[in-house]
Amino acid sequence: MVNRAPIKALAFDVFGTVVDWRSGIARDAAPVLARLDRSDIDPHVFADGWRKRYQPALEEVRSGRRPFVILDTLHREALEDLLRHHRIDPAAIDDATLDDLTHAWHRLDPWPDSVEGLARLKTRFPIVTLSNGNIALMLDMARRAGLPWDAILGAEVSRVYKPLPESYLATARLLAIDPSELCLVAAHHSDLAAARAAGLQTAYVDRPHEYGGRAAPDADAAQDWDVSVGSLTQLADELCR
Amino acid sequence: MVNRAPIKALAFDVFGTVVDWRSGIARDAAPVLARLDRSDIDPHVFADGWRKRYQPALEEVRSGRRPFVILDTLHREALEDLLRHHRIDPAAIDDATLDDLTHAWHRLDPWPDSVEGLARLKTRFPIVTLSNGNIALMLDMARRAGLPWDAILGAEVSRVYKPLPESYLATARLLAIDPSELCLVAAHHSDLAAARAAGLQTAYVDRPHEYGGRAAPDADAAQDWDVSVGSLTQLADELCR
Repeated sequence: MVNRAPIKALAFDVFGTVVDWRSGIARDAAPVLARLDRSDIDPHVFADGWRKRYQPALEEVRSGRRPFVILDTLHREALEDLLRHHRIDPAAIDDATLDDLTHAWHRLDPWPDSVEGLARLKTRFPIVTLSNGNIALMLDMARRAGLPWDAILGAEVSRVYKPLPESYLATARLLAIDPSELCLVAAHHSDLAAARAAGLQTAYVDRPHEYGGRAAPDADAAQDWDVSVGSLTQLADELCR
Repeated sequence: MVNRAPIKALAFDVFGTVVDWRSGIARDAAPVLARLDRSDIDPHVFADGWRKRYQPALEEVRSGRRPFVILDTLHREALEDLLRHHRIDPAAIDDATLDDLTHAWHRLDPWPDSVEGLARLKTRFPIVTLSNGNIALMLDMARRAGLPWDAILGAEVSRVYKPLPESYLATARLLAIDPSELCLVAAHHSDLAAARAAGLQTAYVDRPHEYGGRAAPDADAAQDWDVSVGSLTQLADELCR
């Protein structure tokens, strides 16, 4: 076992790691699809399509081809694209409905262990978000779900989207600690791999229901992470001993 | 009475409004001054000198003559200047001592009503910092004092120091609300005046002990603020009815 620096703060991926985006988006999309008389579209498949769709948009920003815009904006654009894919004209839907559905990402429920796990981890470590979600999104979600963050960091603060190295390095810098003293907690191997490459410690949380039981798209990026657990309460068991 | 927009979030000035910087700095400076055999320097006067001294440095950044640097850096520079003013050579003191004393700003105690007041206000409104203090400073202080912020915003997030208008406008923008829906809570008339000029609502908290009982330097900037209270618990009484 490698000798690691003492952990001085925990940074969390949020979508999929702390909250269940797929169920939340499906729940809020279902009544909208029903009102559009499109109950033929499975709301969970709709959620998958939405989640998948903003990655190319993120890449436009990461590459520098597009100036930084917040995730709410990318979510809204991806929603319109997804609706068109289903042969629904977004221009035929009133703006308030599109806005409200975009804000479904602010209303995601935590996994059953998240609130207790974070509260326990917070007694020992500063806990901050390191998500691509914007500040208002993270704040609304935290207040609704009771996520007790010490600070909301991540994309809108550092102006860089994961998994660019600077997103991890900026977070350590904002906390005034060395990257080796910061541990990323995430359910995604690709995120952890980028964090490790930037010098962070890594804690993997298995979330087998994130994709409705199907394999994660980054399953082949698995490594031997510094910590590997099945829940945030188990992470507290490991780190707060 | 003017018809005001409903308040959607509260942004707090911190030094003087939520925490008692003068007592905290004096408490941590006293043993250092004693070790330097300079117990002739009143630690409260030392605190006043330090607080006063970083304003010109802030102005260098606000004016654009100097690129943005965090408050920890300005505090450290002001400390060295203050020591020289007292004919103490900072180079003769070890770096760890200077660093630790600079971090006294991370260890300030809240006023007696702050924690309860914030907790009650948080049940109704998002509560965020809008301080010139940097993120690590605000986070350390919040964890030590139990300040339950929903988010740490302010200078290091917006890259602008108060009282520039953009510092208030950026905070509203990050919260995805209109400036008229954001209320600044502060013990300083100058801060509130700038916030009002930027379109924010204003809540004044009287802190007669901030300067050890002497008049505040901005007493002549007093206006008829939207709300005026003597404590954060009283602010909760006013706003959470």
